[in-house]
Amino acid sequence: MKKFTVAIHSFGNIGRRALEAALSAPDCECLGVIRRRESLGTHALELRGVQDFASVEELAAAKGRPDVIILCGPSRSVPDTAADLLARGYSTVDSFDIHGNILDSVNRLEAQAMQGGAVAITAAGWDPGTDSVLRALFEAMVPTGTTFTNFGRGRSMGHSVAARAIKGVANATSITIPVGGGRHARLVYVVLEEGENLAEVTARIKADDYFAHDDLTVRQCADDAELATVADQSHGVLMERTGASGMTDNQILKFDMRINNPALTGQVLLSCARAATRMEPGCYTLIDIPPVKLLPGERKTHIKRFV
Amino acid sequence: MKKFTVAIHSFGNIGRRALEAALSAPDCECLGVIRRRESLGTHALELRGVQDFASVEELAAAKGRPDVIILCGPSRSVPDTAADLLARGYSTVDSFDIHGNILDSVNRLEAQAMQGGAVAITAAGWDPGTDSVLRALFEAMVPTGTTFTNFGRGRSMGHSVAARAIKGVANATSITIPVGGGRHARLVYVVLEEGENLAEVTARIKADDYFAHDDLTVRQCADDAELATVADQSHGVLMERTGASGMTDNQILKFDMRINNPALTGQVLLSCARAATRMEPGCYTLIDIPPVKLLPGERKTHIKRFV
Repeated sequence: MKKFTVAIHSFGNIGRRALEAALSAPDCECLGVIRRRESLGTHALELRGVQDFASVEELAAAKGRPDVIILCGPSRSVPDTAADLLARGYSTVDSFDIHGNILDSVNRLEAQAMQGGAVAITAAGWDPGTDSVLRALFEAMVPTGTTFTNFGRGRSMGHSVAARAIKGVANATSITIPVGGGRHARLVYVVLEEGENLAEVTARIKADDYFAHDDLTVRQCADDAELATVADQSHGVLMERTGASGMTDNQILKFDMRINNPALTGQVLLSCARAATRMEPGCYTLIDIPPVKLLPGERKTHIKRFV
Repeated sequence: MKKFTVAIHSFGNIGRRALEAALSAPDCECLGVIRRRESLGTHALELRGVQDFASVEELAAAKGRPDVIILCGPSRSVPDTAADLLARGYSTVDSFDIHGNILDSVNRLEAQAMQGGAVAITAAGWDPGTDSVLRALFEAMVPTGTTFTNFGRGRSMGHSVAARAIKGVANATSITIPVGGGRHARLVYVVLEEGENLAEVTARIKADDYFAHDDLTVRQCADDAELATVADQSHGVLMERTGASGMTDNQILKFDMRINNPALTGQVLLSCARAATRMEPGCYTLIDIPPVKLLPGERKTHIKRFV
C-alpha cells in the first residue's frame, strides 16, 4: 500500500492525538511535527520517536514535502496558517470550530487552495465535522422535522476561555451539561484571584454574553491543582431527529457518542488528511466529501464490506 | 428553484412512498409512475393525481424524459432494469439490497452508465444505504474496533419469502428480533397448508439455511387475515461501535433509529435521485456521494447550516 505523508503542525492536545492517529494508520507516514523553536525536543515521550522541526521549510528540506499538513493550533490561528500554506501549494486539514465564521473561512481557503493547486479540508473535527455529516444525512432521511444536538457532559474550551477572561477569575473550567432540546446548562469551576468574592464573580460570569442565556452554576476550587481534578477530556453528543420521510411521520433517529474529545478530533483530522490526497484542488468540509475517501484502501473493497 | 424531474418505476410499497417523498420535496417534479399495463388506473388514491404509464417511452413521449428514474420493483429485477435504462441514457436510482451481489451490480451498472452517459446510484435504501454511510463514518472516526448492526424488531422481506417457499407453508411473515452483538432471532408466523402439522413445518423451517443459524420460534396463524395483523411496516436499527481513535480506546458510538421501513427507503431513493443529477456519469453507492448533494438547495447554504 502506497503511504501518504503528513506533518503535524502544533503539538498540544490535538496535535499529540493526531500524531497517534497517524502512527496507527496502515497507510500513513508522519514526516514530523512542526512546533515553536523553543519547544523543540520537549515532550519526547509524546513525540514517540518522530522528529520535530521549527518550520515547514525545515521539515520539507530534511524529509521532503508532506502530502498534507494537519493544523492542530488554536482555532483563531488556523485560517491564516492554512491560507499561507495553501498558497504555497501545501494541502491542509484543520478542525477550525468557530461555527459562525466557517463559511467565510471556506471562501477564503478555496481561493488560496485554487491558487496553490492544493486541497484544504476545514472544520474537520467532530462538531463541526462528523456531527455535520450526521445532521446532513439525518435531514436527507427525514427532511421535515427538528434536529437537536445535545452536547456533553464535557468540558467546553470556548466557555472555559471566556470564564478565564472574567474579572476576578484566576483560572476556570466550564463543563457543558445537556438539559434537552439542544439546550445546555453551564457548570463553571473557578479559582478566584486574591480578595475576590464568589458571589460577585458569579454575577459577572452570569452577565457575560457567553453565559447569560443558559442555566449557570459556579463552584469554587482552592487552586489550580484542585481545578485540574475536574478537567478530564471526556465528552459526548446525543443528536436526535424526529420527523417525516415523505408524508410519513414518527421517523426517529438518534446518534449517541461518548468519547475522548482530542482523540476523536485527532483521528478525524487524520482520516480527512487521507481524503485530501484524493480530492481535486479546492476547499471542502466533511459534508462535501464522499465518506469512502476517509478510509484506507480501495473504494470497491469498502463497497463489499459496508454496503 | 429549478426542479429536477423523476419517474417512479413500479408502484408497490416502496414506489408509493417514493412518490410521496417526490411530491413533498421542494425541488422535485414527478412526471409519472410506470407500472404494468393491466394495473393502469388502479390505486387512484395512492397515485395522488399523478399520471401512470405502461412504459418509460410512453411517459417520455407524454411528459418528456425524466432526469432520474426511481426503481421500486423487486430487488432481483433491479439490475436488469437499471442496466437497460442506463444504456439508453436514463439515470437510475435503486435500493437493490442483495448484499452479496452489490459489487457485481456496481461493476455492471458502471459500464452501462458510462455507455449511456448516465448516472446510477445503487443500494440506496437504509441497509444497504444510509447504514452503509454510518458504518464507513464510524470506522473513519474509530478505525480499530467492532461494529454491530442490530436489526429490528421488524419484518424481514427476505426471510418472509424464504419461509413461504417451505413445504407445507401457505403464507408466512418473518420478524427479526435483535439479540445483541449483531445477531438475530427469527419469529416466524405461518399459515399452514391443509393437513400440515406445525411441528413438522417448524422442523423444515429450522433445516432451511436461511433459518438454521439463528434462534427460531414458529407461531401458527389460522388464516391470511390473522397473519396480516402482525405484518406492520415498523423497523429499526441499533448500530454500535466501540474501539480506538488513534491509540485511545473506549470511544463509544451508537446510532439508533425506529422508522416506517418503506417510507425511509422511498425518501432515501428520492434524496439520491437529487444527488444523481449532480454527479458525473458512473455508478455510485451512498458511501461514494458527498452528503451535501443529497439535500435540496445550495452547498454553501448547508455549510452555514450544518457545519
